[in-house]
Amino acid sequence: MSPKYVYFFGGGKAAGRTEMRNLLGGKGADLAEMTNIGIPVPPGFTITTEVCTHYYEHRKTYPKGLRQEAEKAMKQVEKIMGAKFGDPNDPLLVSVRSGAQVSMPGMMETVLNIGLNEETIQGLIARTQNKRFAYDAYRRFIQMYSDVVMEKAEQVGLPEEEKKQGIREQLEHEMDRMKKAKGVELDTDLDAEDLKTLCRIFKAKVREFLGREFPEQPKDQLWGAIGAVFSSWNGKRAISYRKINKIPDHWGTAVNVQVMVFGNMGNDSATGVAFTRDPSTGERRFFGEWLRNAQGEDVVAGIRTPRPINIAGKRKGEKPLPSLEEEMSQIYNELKGLYEKLERHYRNMLDIEFTIQQGKLWMLQTRVGKRTALAAIRIAVDMVNEKMISQREAVLRVAPEQIDQLLHPMIDPNAQKKVIAKGLPASPGAASGQIVFTADDAEEQGNAGRNVILVRHETSPEDIHGMNAARAILTAKGGMTSHAAVVARGMGKCCIVGCGAIHIDYAQKQFTVNSRVYKEGDSITLDGSSGEVMEGVVATIKPEMDENFVTLMSWADRFRRLGVWTNADTPKDAKVARNFGAEGIGLCRTEHMFFDESRIAAMREMIIADSQEQREKALAKILPYQKNDFLGLFKVMEGLPVTIRLLDPPLHEFLPHDDEAISELAQNMGVPFDKLKAKVGQLHELNPMLGHRGCRLGISYNEITEMQARAIFEAAAELTQQGKKVLPEVMVPLVGIVKEFEDQKRVIDRVAREVMAKYGVKFTYHVGTMIEVPRAVLVADQIARSAEFFSFGTNDLTQMTFGFSRDDAGTFLPEYVEKGILADDVFQTIDQEGVGQLVAQGLELGKSANPKLKIGICGEHGGDPRSVVFCHHVGLDYVSCSPYRVPIARLAAAHAAIKEMKKKAGAPAKTAKRKAVKKKVAKKPKKQLLKKRPTSKAAKKKTKAKKSAAKRPSKKKTKKTRAASRRAKKPARKTKARKTAKKTRTRR
Amino acid sequence: MSPKYVYFFGGGKAAGRTEMRNLLGGKGADLAEMTNIGIPVPPGFTITTEVCTHYYEHRKTYPKGLRQEAEKAMKQVEKIMGAKFGDPNDPLLVSVRSGAQVSMPGMMETVLNIGLNEETIQGLIARTQNKRFAYDAYRRFIQMYSDVVMEKAEQVGLPEEEKKQGIREQLEHEMDRMKKAKGVELDTDLDAEDLKTLCRIFKAKVREFLGREFPEQPKDQLWGAIGAVFSSWNGKRAISYRKINKIPDHWGTAVNVQVMVFGNMGNDSATGVAFTRDPSTGERRFFGEWLRNAQGEDVVAGIRTPRPINIAGKRKGEKPLPSLEEEMSQIYNELKGLYEKLERHYRNMLDIEFTIQQGKLWMLQTRVGKRTALAAIRIAVDMVNEKMISQREAVLRVAPEQIDQLLHPMIDPNAQKKVIAKGLPASPGAASGQIVFTADDAEEQGNAGRNVILVRHETSPEDIHGMNAARAILTAKGGMTSHAAVVARGMGKCCIVGCGAIHIDYAQKQFTVNSRVYKEGDSITLDGSSGEVMEGVVATIKPEMDENFVTLMSWADRFRRLGVWTNADTPKDAKVARNFGAEGIGLCRTEHMFFDESRIAAMREMIIADSQEQREKALAKILPYQKNDFLGLFKVMEGLPVTIRLLDPPLHEFLPHDDEAISELAQNMGVPFDKLKAKVGQLHELNPMLGHRGCRLGISYNEITEMQARAIFEAAAELTQQGKKVLPEVMVPLVGIVKEFEDQKRVIDRVAREVMAKYGVKFTYHVGTMIEVPRAVLVADQIARSAEFFSFGTNDLTQMTFGFSRDDAGTFLPEYVEKGILADDVFQTIDQEGVGQLVAQGLELGKSANPKLKIGICGEHGGDPRSVVFCHHVGLDYVSCSPYRVPIARLAAAHAAIKEMKKKAGAPAKTAKRKAVKKKVAKKPKKQLLKKRPTSKAAKKKTKAKKSAAKRPSKKKTKKTRAASRRAKKPARKTKARKTAKKTRTRR
Repeated sequence: MSPKYVYFFGGGKAAGRTEMRNLLGGKGADLAEMTNIGIPVPPGFTITTEVCTHYYEHRKTYPKGLRQEAEKAMKQVEKIMGAKFGDPNDPLLVSVRSGAQVSMPGMMETVLNIGLNEETIQGLIARTQNKRFAYDAYRRFIQMYSDVVMEKAEQVGLPEEEKKQGIREQLEHEMDRMKKAKGVELDTDLDAEDLKTLCRIFKAKVREFLGREFPEQPKDQLWGAIGAVFSSWNGKRAISYRKINKIPDHWGTAVNVQVMVFGNMGNDSATGVAFTRDPSTGERRFFGEWLRNAQGEDVVAGIRTPRPINIAGKRKGEKPLPSLEEEMSQIYNELKGLYEKLERHYRNMLDIEFTIQQGKLWMLQTRVGKRTALAAIRIAVDMVNEKMISQREAVLRVAPEQIDQLLHPMIDPNAQKKVIAKGLPASPGAASGQIVFTADDAEEQGNAGRNVILVRHETSPEDIHGMNAARAILTAKGGMTSHAAVVARGMGKCCIVGCGAIHIDYAQKQFTVNSRVYKEGDSITLDGSSGEVMEGVVATIKPEMDENFVTLMSWADRFRRLGVWTNADTPKDAKVARNFGAEGIGLCRTEHMFFDESRIAAMREMIIADSQEQREKALAKILPYQKNDFLGLFKVMEGLPVTIRLLDPPLHEFLPHDDEAISELAQNMGVPFDKLKAKVGQLHELNPMLGHRGCRLGISYNEITEMQARAIFEAAAELTQQGKKVLPEVMVPLVGIVKEFEDQKRVIDRVAREVMAKYGVKFTYHVGTMIEVPRAVLVADQIARSAEFFSFGTNDLTQMTFGFSRDDAGTFLPEYVEKGILADDVFQTIDQEGVGQLVAQGLELGKSANPKLKIGICGEHGGDPRSVVFCHHVGLDYVSCSPYRVPIARLAAAHAAIKEMKKKAGAPAKTAKRKAVKKKVAKKPKKQLLKKRPTSKAAKKKTKAKKSAAKRPSKKKTKKTRAASRRAKKPARKTKARKTAKKTRTRR
Repeated sequence: MSPKYVYFFGGGKAAGRTEMRNLLGGKGADLAEMTNIGIPVPPGFTITTEVCTHYYEHRKTYPKGLRQEAEKAMKQVEKIMGAKFGDPNDPLLVSVRSGAQVSMPGMMETVLNIGLNEETIQGLIARTQNKRFAYDAYRRFIQMYSDVVMEKAEQVGLPEEEKKQGIREQLEHEMDRMKKAKGVELDTDLDAEDLKTLCRIFKAKVREFLGREFPEQPKDQLWGAIGAVFSSWNGKRAISYRKINKIPDHWGTAVNVQVMVFGNMGNDSATGVAFTRDPSTGERRFFGEWLRNAQGEDVVAGIRTPRPINIAGKRKGEKPLPSLEEEMSQIYNELKGLYEKLERHYRNMLDIEFTIQQGKLWMLQTRVGKRTALAAIRIAVDMVNEKMISQREAVLRVAPEQIDQLLHPMIDPNAQKKVIAKGLPASPGAASGQIVFTADDAEEQGNAGRNVILVRHETSPEDIHGMNAARAILTAKGGMTSHAAVVARGMGKCCIVGCGAIHIDYAQKQFTVNSRVYKEGDSITLDGSSGEVMEGVVATIKPEMDENFVTLMSWADRFRRLGVWTNADTPKDAKVARNFGAEGIGLCRTEHMFFDESRIAAMREMIIADSQEQREKALAKILPYQKNDFLGLFKVMEGLPVTIRLLDPPLHEFLPHDDEAISELAQNMGVPFDKLKAKVGQLHELNPMLGHRGCRLGISYNEITEMQARAIFEAAAELTQQGKKVLPEVMVPLVGIVKEFEDQKRVIDRVAREVMAKYGVKFTYHVGTMIEVPRAVLVADQIARSAEFFSFGTNDLTQMTFGFSRDDAGTFLPEYVEKGILADDVFQTIDQEGVGQLVAQGLELGKSANPKLKIGICGEHGGDPRSVVFCHHVGLDYVSCSPYRVPIARLAAAHAAIKEMKKKAGAPAKTAKRKAVKKKVAKKPKKQLLKKRPTSKAAKKKTKAKKSAAKRPSKKKTKKTRAASRRAKKPARKTKARKTAKKTRTRR
């Protein structure tokens, strides 16, 4: 049996259901569903997404049998409506609309009023007794059809030079001429005859401009429109929307053919859109707009000002505008009844479109309504209280990424703005300020109370004080995990990076964008959530975090298995994170502590020391500062683990690089200029990322490790004496060789013994390592034998696995994503296929050698929802992210766990079917948790045995061990959940 | 049964055999062997290496039963000699000597004349009737024993401040005083009474200085000496020798206790050392030195001038010195008979030590003689001709590393030299020249006919012309695979890198070492084989490459399975390599072609172009040059594959970086300074190694790939038209994502089609990729589906797997090797555990997806013998190395294959036993072909099944496929060999 391509709906019965979105698209599925539950929907039929797939796989042709099926459905429609498509006496008009699995508003084409021609127009006039309406419909049809079908779609494949562009403008021009000739201003001021003339003029223009006749046959019109909608799936707008929203290209769109109803058939007609609850605040009130005697497009187009649907919805100053509630109270009440029915049915806030045709209410569309984060949370919580949905469902209703909005100020949506450039949205929030170009200027002016924005090619640890003083940071270079991005995110500060359009001239203290110059002191505004750089001061608003948020997050925490820790270097950050629900510090970068002015002198003294003795002397000066840092952190995080990474960056980062600064420092330090200069030169590295840093420093200079360990443990000992519970975790960075770790652990353990003896206390501490060098993964079993925890440093791991420098990849990474070479910015969302494979392997090897090993992730990916889902499925114990992303990670972890539970519990009947359909369509995508196996025949046989071992090594074999070790200490529910954490596709 | 700790030898019978070197050490095994074949060896016994192991594992104590065994053996010795150890009337004296598995000449201790005391000395005098001899022996004994045993060994473990150092000097001082008092110059001028007095003085001094009595009991003396020898295994010298020569610490030394014979008992006594063939040239002539009335140490010490052993061995001017042949012809003939017997027995050139005691010849030691590369080859070839050894054996007799000597000039071993600094021996050979500090100066002065040595902090591609013009290169920074090292090796040019001791001042054009200043124009000499930098011009000699070399290499080629290709960028290099036996070019770096002065202008034009059109225009100028390059290469390599890597380095390498040079270039190019400066800034990268380079460039600018592909294919097409066979292999660099490769392959294939159509010819070409980014390994199966070859770029792969920058690792890598964190410089010898694991995985995944995939390696490791062995075992098809290392690789590959064959053939009985012993001792080392599996109990069970799949993935499973695909085209012998290529330990 050939598949069914066409799904009819109408007269209270439909072949489709809401679960069939993958096949019928969201719109089609919802039209069918509405029909089935008795909502008055104009009848019609849906052509499936499979036809779209066929269309693209077979040189834009349709599967056999489609036309017959469509004709059969049209007959059913005609029967219900008592009118015939193309009937000159009483013509049925139809619309053709797109409808993908997920809503892509405005991204694809729509054609209305199909079925009109020189003959049927007469029937329409006769039936409606409204010549003006009929010709208005006709001229709209010609305008739309000639643009969408004849110009855009029908010309596809023509050589570029033969293509015509601009029929739309041509016809608009004709209309303007007509209005001018008639001395009128509005379209509505043209009368029936004018419009009739216009139709003739339009058709002539089409012939002249496009070289083809406007089609007269209703059937030709219909199939032309259907083809145009399918074609628009691969239109430029649609493709870029899909890219941004991670919608796979192969999903395809369905096409909905539906009887036209008209809101512009006179004063007893109207049209409108509404939300079942307020999409901005989530408040439970019916909310919408309508227009009398108008078509849907008029509401959207903004030519006429739409009116509030009800009295409650009137804004200030809107009182005079009549609401539907007042003007057509019966229909309003009918509508209210319908929306309540719909919301009960869909158990969600809905966006509905309706039309009143000559006193009869028709529902044209319903779909889940878009909403702000604030609204999403309120609606979810309210619906739980209204017993419409479960807590699990409520948690799933709020997208993790979305709540980022709630944690930062944002550009006032109503503000005027002039965008001058766009960069990568590195750290969300919005801020205005005066431009400065150096960290020192930022600090000086910032301390003087000015709002400044630091603009640099890129930042380095030397700039920290300036970044701290600035309201926001803008860099011309760098990617999502460049220094500026990482630090700003840690500070919860707005930041845009990789803004290549700005050309900075440090000497002149100015930057240029498109030949416009912005000087120091000029004001700009950054939107770190969109990457937009705006001229002047643009108004921002401070979003609210209310008790609904707290409630929802507490539900999320009930479901998640994954721990959520934070990356925090200061007690202040740690406090923010703890308030956001962080369960520990997964990464405290100690080097930031060395840049403080009071300490850097000692640090520099240490660096230029000629002997171990001198170094130790300098380090002794730093020790009390470091100890104090840790005291502060431990206090804030009392009772929770605090993971401290030992010194990581190369030493030259602590020294100045230009002669002037070197000379000044030499004088201050009382060392010869030449000596200092030589030291700077000696420390210079061509690729500092791969240089003398991380544990390599600690191995060269054991005394650094010793000092840091001493500071950590003395702080721990003091607090332990005071009866406080501290859980220091000492993390050795950049280990790639087991002996590196053993060397450092020896020093750390010795210092711990010494400190405990000195203070006469005992405290628990752990020593572990970052897994951030690919080689560490390869020997993870060796390392795990003496390590107590692993923390995947996926920033560096991504850098080294790809051979991409975070700071330099900005020049080609965006291009890679644009060209589809990579699906995502791999510094933002973990590369599951490559880096993820290493994470899985490291985890498997590590736990196999040491089942008690605790494993987390502390790269930037720890705060990226899709990466968090991966971390859940791969079996990590926790993720660690910047303080402001802690709630996002908590929510993402809850989503992963809930979806996994659902899957395990066995999806209910209808969900199962929906999955089956989805699977069918989603056959092709290659993304997967681990690697796909070879497909050659010879290889297949061989790899069969290997599959469970080599390539998906962790899954089957270690699950038992891991589960077992966890069973002892975790509630059964979690163990169960864990068991099902397998190969789940993480596409979102 | 407890193990046997003591092996007796003497009187024509010995318990040991030559195969027992691991247990008895080389010396002990050979003494036993000699005894067994009837060589007159002074009797004695060997204490096994297992005792040494026990000694170190049990706080320097001996296993139970050792003393009894030793006493029993001593009784046997006494019986043979008819004298007793410690007998006051006729004392037997013994020596105690070390003896490890491999010879470590002079690295451990020896004690002679043990058994002398105030009583036994009288017996010795009585027996020898030579009071002077006896007291001379006694004073030597006291000197040696007090130094070696009482000072060094017995003080081990004492607190540093309680240790005494300098007894040796103290006693020498007493001797000098005595000589002065007696008014004599030579030790030999002191008479018996003098020496007797001296013995008394010595003992008093020992008591005074070391605070202990000199031991009188012969047994105490004996065990003191034995302990001292065991202790010396862990002496400083021995440890560093082992490190240099990669001898495992746990092997331990044996101890040989042997009856003393004296060459200094009068004029009928003598001592000497000899080689059975000339160790310098390999000439078949008995060759040695002797001294009448002397002890062995006198020959070595250089106090008396040794005499030639025979007439033939006399050098010019030596005629007056009497030879043994002339002076003691009967004994000389006996010795000659013995050496011939020994050489026949050992089938090798031997180094022997003999002593004539009162007219009786004793052989003290025999071992395989050290020899130069030249001699090694000649001896191997001669012995095949003499039917002493097989060709296989002959090939194994020459160490691959050794023949490097033959390919470069070297410092005259007889020349005087003043070493001023030492760096890393980056490229072998020796050269003298005048110092220059810039590439331009090098070129200018080099072209003017001067010999110059280019001295830089580090070199970059911009310096190529200067490196080319210089005789040698010296850099202060960088490691074994820094730019300077790699390029110099490619050029076959002497180079020393990472010479941190020199401080360069470019401005003054001078460098300083230890406060001595060397200015431009001063002469220095570099020894690229040792890393030594010498003052002035030191004489060099040009080693010969004779027909023996050619013969041996032809034998090597018969045995090896691995192909040997070369890395060559120019026809000149290619020619050198082909002459050295290269079977293809595995890596032609095209970027070097762009630095030529005539081309760089166009290249720069391309870089600063604002549009694709401008870029294409500039590239069109480069095209003919590139095409010409390839024409040259293809001609030289006719009939062999030529692998051309597309542009790899980041573009900024082609632009100047300082303002002056930028300004000059801007003027030349006719572009504004600011624009050029901005471009330089824009291209600047923090970590260029991980930046916009490799295929990332080709993807950003398809037109570069297109131009290069066109140049390659047009050259191929032209030569094809001329009837020449060309095999271009286009290699896409730095692929980490399958779509990168697909993108580039699409361009290359299109150009190939276009060129073939244009020229109307067909030629075979392949498109493949370097596997040098860790991620490429993880997705190697995906890449292999469209790639025709892989070439492991293990330089970059090592960099990214470890996170080590080649150019910067010089600051810590040597320290890592010194501290034992790494066994080797991983840029020199492949890291089998980590990088090797990736190579194995990439190969396995690649061949599983595409069994026809050809896989090689083109990193520097391709020319490193130990890495070549790894490549053989892991199953690569070929290695590619710099031209001058091609013979080394050929030989190493032959070694690997022969050893594998031997192993597979089943070792003959005695070899098998030897292996068993070896295995026992070598239980601990952790090096292995791939990874060691986890050892925890839980893990063990799991990993069992996985072992063959996950960790040694390629071995069993793909063997069949690979072997099958090879069977079709390769002789059966090779297939067989391949089958045995498994898990062979590659320790050398």
